[in-house]
Amino acid sequence: MSYQTIKVDTRDGLCVVTQDRPERLNARSSQMYAEMIAAFEAADADAEVCALLLASSGDAFCSGMDFKNEYQHAYTVLPEDSEHVAAIKAEFPADDPMTAVVGLAKRFVQAFIRFEKPLIAAVNGAAVGEGFSSILHCDLVYATPNAYFWAPFARAGAAPEFCATVLAPRRLGPTLANAALYFGRKIDVHEAHGAGFVLEILERENFLDEVEKRLQEGLALAGPPELRASTLRSFRALVYSDEERERLYLQADREFDLVQQRVRSGETDLVRQYYASQLPS
Amino acid sequence: MSYQTIKVDTRDGLCVVTQDRPERLNARSSQMYAEMIAAFEAADADAEVCALLLASSGDAFCSGMDFKNEYQHAYTVLPEDSEHVAAIKAEFPADDPMTAVVGLAKRFVQAFIRFEKPLIAAVNGAAVGEGFSSILHCDLVYATPNAYFWAPFARAGAAPEFCATVLAPRRLGPTLANAALYFGRKIDVHEAHGAGFVLEILERENFLDEVEKRLQEGLALAGPPELRASTLRSFRALVYSDEERERLYLQADREFDLVQQRVRSGETDLVRQYYASQLPS
Amino acid sequence: MSYQTIKVDTRDGLCVVTQDRPERLNARSSQMYAEMIAAFEAADADAEVCALLLASSGDAFCSGMDFKNEYQHAYTVLPEDSEHVAAIKAEFPADDPMTAVVGLAKRFVQAFIRFEKPLIAAVNGAAVGEGFSSILHCDLVYATPNAYFWAPFARAGAAPEFCATVLAPRRLGPTLANAALYFGRKIDVHEAHGAGFVLEILERENFLDEVEKRLQEGLALAGPPELRASTLRSFRALVYSDEERERLYLQADREFDLVQQRVRSGETDLVRQYYASQLPS
Repeated sequence: MSYQTIKVDTRDGLCVVTQDRPERLNARSSQMYAEMIAAFEAADADAEVCALLLASSGDAFCSGMDFKNEYQHAYTVLPEDSEHVAAIKAEFPADDPMTAVVGLAKRFVQAFIRFEKPLIAAVNGAAVGEGFSSILHCDLVYATPNAYFWAPFARAGAAPEFCATVLAPRRLGPTLANAALYFGRKIDVHEAHGAGFVLEILERENFLDEVEKRLQEGLALAGPPELRASTLRSFRALVYSDEERERLYLQADREFDLVQQRVRSGETDLVRQYYASQLPS
Repeated sequence: MSYQTIKVDTRDGLCVVTQDRPERLNARSSQMYAEMIAAFEAADADAEVCALLLASSGDAFCSGMDFKNEYQHAYTVLPEDSEHVAAIKAEFPADDPMTAVVGLAKRFVQAFIRFEKPLIAAVNGAAVGEGFSSILHCDLVYATPNAYFWAPFARAGAAPEFCATVLAPRRLGPTLANAALYFGRKIDVHEAHGAGFVLEILERENFLDEVEKRLQEGLALAGPPELRASTLRSFRALVYSDEERERLYLQADREFDLVQQRVRSGETDLVRQYYASQLPS
Repeated sequence: MSYQTIKVDTRDGLCVVTQDRPERLNARSSQMYAEMIAAFEAADADAEVCALLLASSGDAFCSGMDFKNEYQHAYTVLPEDSEHVAAIKAEFPADDPMTAVVGLAKRFVQAFIRFEKPLIAAVNGAAVGEGFSSILHCDLVYATPNAYFWAPFARAGAAPEFCATVLAPRRLGPTLANAALYFGRKIDVHEAHGAGFVLEILERENFLDEVEKRLQEGLALAGPPELRASTLRSFRALVYSDEERERLYLQADREFDLVQQRVRSGETDLVRQYYASQLPS
């Protein structure tokens, strides 16, 4: 399977999805949304895959949604697109751009919520905006000493998304989550580790190798290789129920409603003008 | 607006409510209940106010409910009372003192639950009894090195209140909460910080200035000043839903039921006699 | 009351149940299940008992279910059995061994869920398998420096049990819980303390004395001795509701369903053969 914005490689039962736009600090374009959805769905369906590791090229994990998003890519099938990616794009006709943009974004969040196998993040640097909030859906988070987590939703004229309004309190504790959600507090990796969100801080050198080594040690405890994927999926289904998924889909919708309301009312523009006007002229 | 037991000052969108009975270690009298309810309601309704910071005069945060409570103040309008405070008192006619006392106390808890903007506590010393349990409702908690949290409900012949039975496990983790609720464990500020309840420990000197500085830095990320209050309120409504409020009102009622049951059955008196008899004569 | 596999001693309102099969690292046999159920029920019914402390003989806390389980003991009344233990055994007729084994195990989990007074674990060493997951039901956990928590359910061809799939995330935080549940991560005592699960790490020398001292200090704050048991029970009923118990019974059933499904489908045997084949011949 070939993609334009990500790399996907499965080794010994572990599917590594690498966000691969280092020149944009791995900001997520619409093309990347469509490709990541496809990669998550393929990994979930692949009986060889026991778990998915989300990683990144370069020195940042993900700088959020790409504001220089090339919308047409989301709706125009590129010659390089796989059938799977093309089919995802076809779900969002470009007639009504706002509906299409929001539809694809929701679909992207749902890909995280719906995923049925252990989901691990290897955070190699800045995790900003949805680069942070999306990994609240990951079962395990490993990070390098230079990693940090920052989502100043209000400053962007947006609103907390990716279910951060329910997942951040669970993953970071309510106090730190409130500071992040309401006051745009940047969380450094040590604070995130102390809060229990980051499992382990690992050196940048050989970071991904060290993460994979730990995951392979874990997979080696999950029985013979052919039983591992189904075993881990059945364990995770007990922790993460379908009722919980329903609640998260609903919460994601509520969050998107607020974002859309802010955009449509003109608030988002007012916020951006306000901060633009503060720049030295 | 002038109050007898608190000071209220709004600066740059931040409403600072200072508990101001330092000679009683800021123990809360009925008068203080009525005035704090009024101040919370006024801050919530004031479009200029983005967040409320609860602070204290002197070297203690709050030593709990004032057992030397001057009940008549709750039901008798004082010449100095504002119309708002007078109206709150009028809700609780003094014909049936027990009903009035419990009614005002419930109303006070509800003022914390109902509040719709970010609520921050600046804990400058001992937080005892409801001085502790009430700040479980605060989104952020800052504290000085001499602060501690202690609520030996059983020793007072009372019961956990202010929704501590559901909020303490969330804010402190179940283990520490159980130790505090069942075994009257005193929690020092470092333990509370380690548990994620206290966001930051700040020196006593310039404590409030440092807290305000951090909050102002946060508010500066919330868009142009005129949008900040509504933006933060809309974010908080996603984190803290009306369904959750309904659950907390109900839990507060259950807790008050137990307290009243203990008082009415005579248990409370037995407990107080027991500890009084242990004092050196 | 005399037991074969545990010791029970009530002193000053504290019932100490000591798991006493040190030669098997306190692995739990069916006999031990029946006896612990009886001890928990007796402590709950005894008006003198304010709280139950679960402790262990030797250098391990509990190595899990005893795979060398002597099943007949669960269903055959021994001459030494008390009436209470005999009655519990009689609930599980030996006609259908699988049903009886699962029935007794469920009954054992339910004894933890149903217990109405504060439940404390004194973890003096390894807590493995259900030796770990069972203490997720304990309100407080004290531990020695050599203690650790490990439950590689998948490696045993089993599945997470004892409500670990909902309680581990609450007690350890989601990240650490996921690592333990999916990847068989061993959690050392310092990590468990940092996560808030272990309240205090105490030296091995005089460990139980130190734990009891702390609990007695707590009980001394709960009013006159004759009111302590009912007071603590009423506080705990506010924290731990019957609705919550119903959810936990249901979750325990779901977990047992998965274990049984794995056993019946032959997966459990495949897993054991796989690991047996890896041993040096």
